[in-house]
Amino acid sequence: MTVNIGNHYKLLAPRPTVCVSTLSSDGTSNLAPFSFATPLSFDPPLLGVSVGHGKDTLLNARETEDFVVAPLTSRWKEKGVRAEISLGRDESEFEEIGLTENPSKEVDSPSIKEAPINIECEYWDDFKAGDHSLLVGKVVSISAEEEAIKNGRINLEGMGAIGHVTGEEFCLSDVTIKIERE
Amino acid sequence: MTVNIGNHYKLLAPRPTVCVSTLSSDGTSNLAPFSFATPLSFDPPLLGVSVGHGKDTLLNARETEDFVVAPLTSRWKEKGVRAEISLGRDESEFEEIGLTENPSKEVDSPSIKEAPINIECEYWDDFKAGDHSLLVGKVVSISAEEEAIKNGRINLEGMGAIGHVTGEEFCLSDVTIKIERE
Repeated sequence: MTVNIGNHYKLLAPRPTVCVSTLSSDGTSNLAPFSFATPLSFDPPLLGVSVGHGKDTLLNARETEDFVVAPLTSRWKEKGVRAEISLGRDESEFEEIGLTENPSKEVDSPSIKEAPINIECEYWDDFKAGDHSLLVGKVVSISAEEEAIKNGRINLEGMGAIGHVTGEEFCLSDVTIKIERE
Repeated sequence: MTVNIGNHYKLLAPRPTVCVSTLSSDGTSNLAPFSFATPLSFDPPLLGVSVGHGKDTLLNARETEDFVVAPLTSRWKEKGVRAEISLGRDESEFEEIGLTENPSKEVDSPSIKEAPINIECEYWDDFKAGDHSLLVGKVVSISAEEEAIKNGRINLEGMGAIGHVTGEEFCLSDVTIKIERE
């Protein structure tokens, strides 16, 4: 069968879901969830988040040149998804949805206290791609709770990582399988 | 605790895993697996796959200007992962690993017979990002087996989508959860 090409993103699923925290130039924090996100490079460690044009996340990251990426896990999944609410640029989603700002180590954008992993990024570049721009960050520091990491990777079994499929459908990943590699 | 920044990709996980099929200018097919992949734009429908510099996938896509992306599912996961074998540019991974080329509808690069979903892309652009380049494709056709699609999205329950964590660790997604959105 032929599938509508507009549904392409529903086939690359589940997709890692993250909240991105930024600061505007006047110091207002912003938080928004995204599921078009991927690592891009090992050295330097780069990651990309595809953000709709005109979104505060993109404007803020360009202006103040850093952002924090927090992978969504089971514990704070409802609040993370609620960060999609639309507020004015002078209002912060943090307070509105009940999440707490924590100072980051290397960047000005706040980390999320309730998130077990916060990946601090310096703005690297952004690339226009259709109706979004890919916001690229260079990872400069990663903070995590002890129980959030297992053998250097996200502790899926301990926390459950959340991936988005479409609409209100998500997947919870909390077990791994082994596929042999040569 | 502080996590090594080089482990950033092990925290954005599991990541959708795909095989990308291309053709060299002399007509040799190539197949390789990737897990740095994401949708980028709704309209036009764009997706991106981050590919190491010098990889045949990138060289071929630039030369012959199209490629096919097949999300990895349970049924062909071992063969899909084995496509990472390194062959000369005049040798095809298809035969070597026991996968079958199928003609695509809109592009010259072959689809994968054993893959339940094949997303055909025209080369759109590529962006250098550290030690990789993000290969961007415009989706021009999607072919799928009837049982591979459920409500317009990948039929996770029927097939099981494979995501990569790190090394030989992967996740199988075959059940969804609901998170309410406003």
